[in-house]
Amino acid sequence: MKILVVNCGSSSLKYQIFDIEQGSFNLLAKGSATRIGIEGSIIEHKPSGKEECSIKKPLKNHKEAMLAIEPLLTDDKYGVLEDISEINGIGHRVVHGGEVFKSSVVIDEDVIRDIDKLSKFAPLHNPANLTGIQTCRQLMDAPNVAVFDTAVHQTMPAKAFMYGLPLEYYKNKGIRKYGFHGTSHDFVSAEAAKLIGKPFEQCRIITCHLGNGSSITAFKDGKVQDTSMGLTPLQGVLMGTRCGDVDPAAVLSVMQSDGIMPKQMDEILNKKSGLLGLAGSSDLRDVMNMAEQGNQDAKNAVEILVYSIQKYIGSYLASLGGADAVVFTAGIGENNPIIRDNVLSCFGFAGIKVDKSKNVAGEKVFSTDDSKVKALLIPTNEELMIAMDTYKMIS
Amino acid sequence: MKILVVNCGSSSLKYQIFDIEQGSFNLLAKGSATRIGIEGSIIEHKPSGKEECSIKKPLKNHKEAMLAIEPLLTDDKYGVLEDISEINGIGHRVVHGGEVFKSSVVIDEDVIRDIDKLSKFAPLHNPANLTGIQTCRQLMDAPNVAVFDTAVHQTMPAKAFMYGLPLEYYKNKGIRKYGFHGTSHDFVSAEAAKLIGKPFEQCRIITCHLGNGSSITAFKDGKVQDTSMGLTPLQGVLMGTRCGDVDPAAVLSVMQSDGIMPKQMDEILNKKSGLLGLAGSSDLRDVMNMAEQGNQDAKNAVEILVYSIQKYIGSYLASLGGADAVVFTAGIGENNPIIRDNVLSCFGFAGIKVDKSKNVAGEKVFSTDDSKVKALLIPTNEELMIAMDTYKMIS
Repeated sequence: MKILVVNCGSSSLKYQIFDIEQGSFNLLAKGSATRIGIEGSIIEHKPSGKEECSIKKPLKNHKEAMLAIEPLLTDDKYGVLEDISEINGIGHRVVHGGEVFKSSVVIDEDVIRDIDKLSKFAPLHNPANLTGIQTCRQLMDAPNVAVFDTAVHQTMPAKAFMYGLPLEYYKNKGIRKYGFHGTSHDFVSAEAAKLIGKPFEQCRIITCHLGNGSSITAFKDGKVQDTSMGLTPLQGVLMGTRCGDVDPAAVLSVMQSDGIMPKQMDEILNKKSGLLGLAGSSDLRDVMNMAEQGNQDAKNAVEILVYSIQKYIGSYLASLGGADAVVFTAGIGENNPIIRDNVLSCFGFAGIKVDKSKNVAGEKVFSTDDSKVKALLIPTNEELMIAMDTYKMIS
Repeated sequence: MKILVVNCGSSSLKYQIFDIEQGSFNLLAKGSATRIGIEGSIIEHKPSGKEECSIKKPLKNHKEAMLAIEPLLTDDKYGVLEDISEINGIGHRVVHGGEVFKSSVVIDEDVIRDIDKLSKFAPLHNPANLTGIQTCRQLMDAPNVAVFDTAVHQTMPAKAFMYGLPLEYYKNKGIRKYGFHGTSHDFVSAEAAKLIGKPFEQCRIITCHLGNGSSITAFKDGKVQDTSMGLTPLQGVLMGTRCGDVDPAAVLSVMQSDGIMPKQMDEILNKKSGLLGLAGSSDLRDVMNMAEQGNQDAKNAVEILVYSIQKYIGSYLASLGGADAVVFTAGIGENNPIIRDNVLSCFGFAGIKVDKSKNVAGEKVFSTDDSKVKALLIPTNEELMIAMDTYKMIS
């Protein structure tokens, strides 16, 4: 079965095509259209085992982007399909599924209406996701499936998802912790269970998705018990441009003293904070280089990042009553052995021992053989998870 | 030496008189003036070993309150002093000492000016504390000492006290974590070291001050390493009327949707949230009774409270790399064995084992003999700490 995976941002459309059969898969092509609706639109198409190509042409909207991508997929030179009708299903990443969507779902008018309603919680993402869905429904006949970033977190108990705010905020406005990066946490936690050779339903696993956006999730008996992101992807550990946890009264204090409105404050906390706000770059590699050259602000930023991750792992060890494994994934988690080593250095008391040479070598299991808790490095693959879910839903 | 301890709130003045000599102390009297400046002002005076008395009379301000308390202290029947001049020193609780005050200090004009400047961080508390200081300076000749809630926390490293906000917020505005309940954490952590028979400077101790306001502190080598309250006493665990940790974007979302200004939002988060917001009462005993009678909101509120404490203890175990002891103190910590037991139930993995009968009996050491980490119950005494510090400063 050929599955197209679509991930629409406000000015981008990323895609991958998989050929999936029971138990195996092939990536046929991937690519993206970026700068949609702004000057300098570009399509980059990478078919597996073939020459890559890029096309610069004005793309007014996501429909024009999809219309420009479609011929590439069936092109004699760059194509991977005879005809676009070969696509059996389309899987869409949707950021916010609220309390409505506890798993992936085949898209119909009701689903579209519900995703639209949930735009209040993800005003930048859900409308973009919907644009992708509408475009595909217009251009292709295959069924569309929505795969939500929040769905896997819907198993959290009330003690984990409720805030200490007036109850009406939850009951009437849906203000609670939802969590994000669900497909990634879901994928790597299931892979972790395989690696440690124990049924997923009997595992306690802490997954650290550390990228430009970062979140940490605690799985108990195969279900999410807690996660560090909240109503929005702002809460939790320090990120590239997001502040993570902060005294809410500190935010109110700044608003009052500087006369800042909520929307502007939200932008400062989401886009001008984190590593960028502390050290001038949102890229951890830059910040670590600066730190190595003696820049004290950069040193602090790296320490704050590591410490915020340590505190979440510690709190989730408490939440789970100990763990079988701690998993690292995504850009930083997969590629930064120094951060992995520093993060885990304080957990001797909980039975975590890092094998430094395995860690530097990037081995999947990088704890020592006698480590009570396994330290794991598992590359994430959110697109494959979306494709697999889509395959399951339409099979 | 006779030391008067004064703790001024916006409409209250609490006091205690200690007689302190090297290594020993006696509480001579304690009392309070409440509803100062509002209808129904009342003074309640409790001399040790003598009959108590209360006086209802209008008290326009803190000076009138102190003028009405003074004759009680030297009264034939209720008094504990021959003459007010016997008081050798006055210790004042001051809530916010910012980065200026790293320990207690004898009050002069410069100190008063600095405490006044720090009112921006504690707009309800510091001005009230200053009123108490000014009143005592006018009415008595003895030296005045300021003992700060924040001082002991000034040893925190940058990774613990800095937020992931734009750096200028810290450098230009002083926005950082300060922490509170310092005298309480200081007192019980030092007592804990005595109980476990190890030099304080070699101990790793987690202190849980759980009252109507609650905070948790991690001590490493006798110094604060981290604490749960932040720029203000709003951050951290769930409290009687305060929300504790919450996605800052959730707060902004409510402000935007309901058109709420920062000052009003601050009031909601500080006074209408926490147990009160979730279950209708800020008193944990009420909420636990409601929970026992099957009220689901109350059950959730108790679980959220316990879970938020567990997560902080877990994160501070990570911060310290394990601990020698976990200490419970203040109203809830001292008097609620169910909460103590529930909180510690998940820490078997870290070597904490509760002896249930010792816990119910309220014993000071309520962990089992083979528990790697000691569980301790230590009643706090902030007033005594203030008196002791004052004694030291003026000796």
